Amino acid sequence: MSPIADRLAALRTLMRERDYAALIVPRADEYLGEYLPAHNERMHWVSGFTGSAGVVIVLADSAAIFVDGRYTVQVRREVDGALFGILDLVNQPHVQWLSGELSPGARVACDPRLHTLAWFRAATQTLEAADQQLVADTDNLVDRCWHERPAAQVAPALLLDTRFTGASSEQKRGEIARSLVNAGADAALIFAPDSVSWLLNVRGTDIPCLPVLQSFALLYASGAVDLFVDPARIPQGFSAHVGEGVQVLPESQALSRFAGLAGKRVLADPDSANAWTQLELQRAGAHLVPRTDPVLLPKACKNAVEVQGAREAHRRDAVAEVRFLAWLDAEVAAGRLHDEDTLAAQLGALRAANDHYHGPSFDTISAAGGNAAMCHYNHRNAESPGRLVMDSVYLVDSGGQYTDGTTDITRTVAIGNPAEEVRRLFTLVLKGHIALDQARFPAGTSGTHLDALARQFLWQHGYDFAHGTGHGVGAFLSVHEGPQRIARAWNPTALAPGMIVSNEPGYYRDGEFGIRCENLVVVRECDTVGETPVYGFEVLTLVPFDRRLLAESLLSGDEVAWLNRYHARVRDTIGPLLQGADRAWLEQATQPL
Amino acid sequence: MSPIADRLAALRTLMRERDYAALIVPRADEYLGEYLPAHNERMHWVSGFTGSAGVVIVLADSAAIFVDGRYTVQVRREVDGALFGILDLVNQPHVQWLSGELSPGARVACDPRLHTLAWFRAATQTLEAADQQLVADTDNLVDRCWHERPAAQVAPALLLDTRFTGASSEQKRGEIARSLVNAGADAALIFAPDSVSWLLNVRGTDIPCLPVLQSFALLYASGAVDLFVDPARIPQGFSAHVGEGVQVLPESQALSRFAGLAGKRVLADPDSANAWTQLELQRAGAHLVPRTDPVLLPKACKNAVEVQGAREAHRRDAVAEVRFLAWLDAEVAAGRLHDEDTLAAQLGALRAANDHYHGPSFDTISAAGGNAAMCHYNHRNAESPGRLVMDSVYLVDSGGQYTDGTTDITRTVAIGNPAEEVRRLFTLVLKGHIALDQARFPAGTSGTHLDALARQFLWQHGYDFAHGTGHGVGAFLSVHEGPQRIARAWNPTALAPGMIVSNEPGYYRDGEFGIRCENLVVVRECDTVGETPVYGFEVLTLVPFDRRLLAESLLSGDEVAWLNRYHARVRDTIGPLLQGADRAWLEQATQPL
Repeated sequence: MSPIADRLAALRTLMRERDYAALIVPRADEYLGEYLPAHNERMHWVSGFTGSAGVVIVLADSAAIFVDGRYTVQVRREVDGALFGILDLVNQPHVQWLSGELSPGARVACDPRLHTLAWFRAATQTLEAADQQLVADTDNLVDRCWHERPAAQVAPALLLDTRFTGASSEQKRGEIARSLVNAGADAALIFAPDSVSWLLNVRGTDIPCLPVLQSFALLYASGAVDLFVDPARIPQGFSAHVGEGVQVLPESQALSRFAGLAGKRVLADPDSANAWTQLELQRAGAHLVPRTDPVLLPKACKNAVEVQGAREAHRRDAVAEVRFLAWLDAEVAAGRLHDEDTLAAQLGALRAANDHYHGPSFDTISAAGGNAAMCHYNHRNAESPGRLVMDSVYLVDSGGQYTDGTTDITRTVAIGNPAEEVRRLFTLVLKGHIALDQARFPAGTSGTHLDALARQFLWQHGYDFAHGTGHGVGAFLSVHEGPQRIARAWNPTALAPGMIVSNEPGYYRDGEFGIRCENLVVVRECDTVGETPVYGFEVLTLVPFDRRLLAESLLSGDEVAWLNRYHARVRDTIGPLLQGADRAWLEQATQPL
Repeated sequence: MSPIADRLAALRTLMRERDYAALIVPRADEYLGEYLPAHNERMHWVSGFTGSAGVVIVLADSAAIFVDGRYTVQVRREVDGALFGILDLVNQPHVQWLSGELSPGARVACDPRLHTLAWFRAATQTLEAADQQLVADTDNLVDRCWHERPAAQVAPALLLDTRFTGASSEQKRGEIARSLVNAGADAALIFAPDSVSWLLNVRGTDIPCLPVLQSFALLYASGAVDLFVDPARIPQGFSAHVGEGVQVLPESQALSRFAGLAGKRVLADPDSANAWTQLELQRAGAHLVPRTDPVLLPKACKNAVEVQGAREAHRRDAVAEVRFLAWLDAEVAAGRLHDEDTLAAQLGALRAANDHYHGPSFDTISAAGGNAAMCHYNHRNAESPGRLVMDSVYLVDSGGQYTDGTTDITRTVAIGNPAEEVRRLFTLVLKGHIALDQARFPAGTSGTHLDALARQFLWQHGYDFAHGTGHGVGAFLSVHEGPQRIARAWNPTALAPGMIVSNEPGYYRDGEFGIRCENLVVVRECDTVGETPVYGFEVLTLVPFDRRLLAESLLSGDEVAWLNRYHARVRDTIGPLLQGADRAWLEQATQPL
């Protein structure tokens, strides 16, 4: 038997003991974040699948794995089709599918720490409609069977100075606590680790890409906080750093603290906080008030210190990216067509030389030739990394975590002389990028209102791209941060000063090439010229776009002026930070059109 | 005592008899449409207010009227402040306000035929939370007291030939009935008179502006229809016209037909159908399935015959509008600065000369000078109509109902030499109009996605306008038709081929001037050039924009080309339909820039 078959057999033995007809294993841990530490990669352990999203369902005689469109090829390579049916995570609601596989009376197990309360309630309803039962089992079956499970990496948190955060934890807690009082609440469950980290001005160091302290918290209307965290993660000086009123408790004491909230009104976000915390709060007698995490909006609207930090982090980041692009051109000119892994490593090494650098902000997308047509391509998951292709384009989407800010940039680079069709599409994408960059808009405008600005030129020619146009970005926090977003799907959050978002239209032609032009921008108030105050974007990312990819006849005079202005700013700001060949490369790459 | 005081006293006597602490009188009749026949103007009878939206609440010792921002000036002129408090319809939820005025146990009367079910349920909840009760009283108290109430105008309906509708009633009923079967429903309440009129290919003639047959219907899964209508409205030949399966019944027989639906699933739209029908269906034992009116989308997506009709109606309409604009220029040149009433009458007379004309599609907005800054200005409600002002602009928003289509056009006209600031704003508005007109977009795009295209140039300069950018328009039906809309508020309906919408950005400077540039356009599939099918707009309205109002330096080359192309098309299409001075005027008004 294969190791995977052994694991399924072990799980099924336990399932029989506990009278479960099915077990749901999502790709998630108890913090429900985007990145998992190795010891929480339970879905991978059960199935062998290494993708970043998915759900496994184990039944008595069969199993299924649900993945989204990004992973349809990869899942067939990694997962044994004899053991798992492969299903569509987006178009095939997995709980409904499961219900159809089971008889009335069947019991389905899930770990309530690995699902949101909203999911838990919806799944309960779906199963109950077929006279089946969802059982919340916190004695995780995978953990029981996973004998070679790695130990958790536990590293002490970083304490982030107010010269980076711009506000002390006491100030932040006071502000959010006032919003609780206004909402008539006694406390709020602050569940997301990035919300907790922002609130306490701490950062974690033990998950790749996401510098959060793995923890959750209760914030009281007094401004006091109970922080539930492995005490081994709490460094010297923490108490003085966070100020009055923060009590550190191991998670095992959460239930006793919940008991103190009997009869109290507790805000909690059923769409983002895990089911376990809310079910236990309810069991303790607290009145749950479903409400968006009150930290989200203050965290999204960066203060002046955070914006200034972002500017500085982006300058250092631009130096690494420009040195990489200069090196890449030289290597290609010398006939050295590197593979995607080598290219990503080179860029990573240049970034690592920067001050205040902590690591990548996400897995670098380094995609040559046709691989770039997969917009979430990961060369590490390919059978072997692709190699640069002459007369094509190379797409590199990467970013860094710095103490003063988080970066995320995509550039599309000419390798040799790409076809006119590639240049035409690149230019249409860049025109959309420029239109969004130049947008001005009144208060109350959401990203959904602006999304079409970035797509309009592609649309004119009968093209589109299938991802969002922009996501929020944290301040030395998650590179994908809400609540704002620029996308077709309706997002009611108005863009507000201090919000950092990406501007990243693209175009992908299956099997042939991929294009994306991504800068980060920060929303700020414009000098008022008319009568309605309007906001606009200040660009943070300072790296040239590849002029060799332009179909100049498609650019308007205003667009040429925008590009020349942007390139002059890149040259003036980043040039002095470079030497020799790198500086010469920047000079020529930023020549006016 | 004033007549209004007498009326309030009579109502209060009845309220005491029936133990009502309050009575709610909305500006609505039992069909919940935008236009009311005179005998249903109950809110006007109670209060004296002639506006097109509002709610009166009568209490034992006081009364209040709720109106929106359009009517804040007018209401104070028309309504006696000693008898009525004046409150804000939008920002002051009127039922919540009422609840606060009343003691626990209070009974509040409403006529359930004059409110949607959604309103009725929400109002019931609001009052119940304060231990108060909403009473559905169909023996309308106003009707009891309104002794000089005019008789209903009852005119026979028009039967609309398939050369105008493009599909027979049997075809339409068959298509919608199939959608009922797919939804697992036995019947649908078709409540909106314009839905009924479309479904049966009939039109009414007894309400101003809105050519609907006042009626409602039950559509069965068989395609059969029970039509509840005053039989006096049914003309000769109706039965042959609508085909098999349509039974005409007086509204008094509705309850007996509802009884036949006991145990059946009946689709009904709680947001648009009145509470009375749905409460009675429920009482009869029907299972209500809340669902958008199934006629809305098929009605909105005009077929090829309806689109061709719209083109022809717009050509005739353009002749009237062009002759009006030519006349207006000549009158101003001769020093005759007419008043708004005279101008509106002249335009109306020119339209009335057109074939297939039935009347205006809404009350003409004829606004000179500062009056145009009120975007819903009605000179008939002004103390006296304004008069053209030299070196300013005149705004005229008007439309007609024709057998083959409904029109709606706004033009802003230079009177003398308007200031450069006016020309600058006009040009920014027109740029937005052009950008929206030229948009192309894939399936699934909603009007909310495109709204910013029309506002972007105003936003760049710190301006905006406070109304939607575009509304749907019917085919010889309501000039304001859903479900599609182009506006900032999220509208999930995707723009689809055959939908007619207005493109009408504007700008309003309080007390000084107002600008609006409005064409109607129809969504159609573009010749596919790329790989994603895209839709675009075909313009229906063919009347020049005033070139004297352009600040040419603000127009791009593409925009100048658009305007010249549009004007050439207007000249070529409408020119041959004009004679003499009118034709000469069009020649000069459409000269290329």
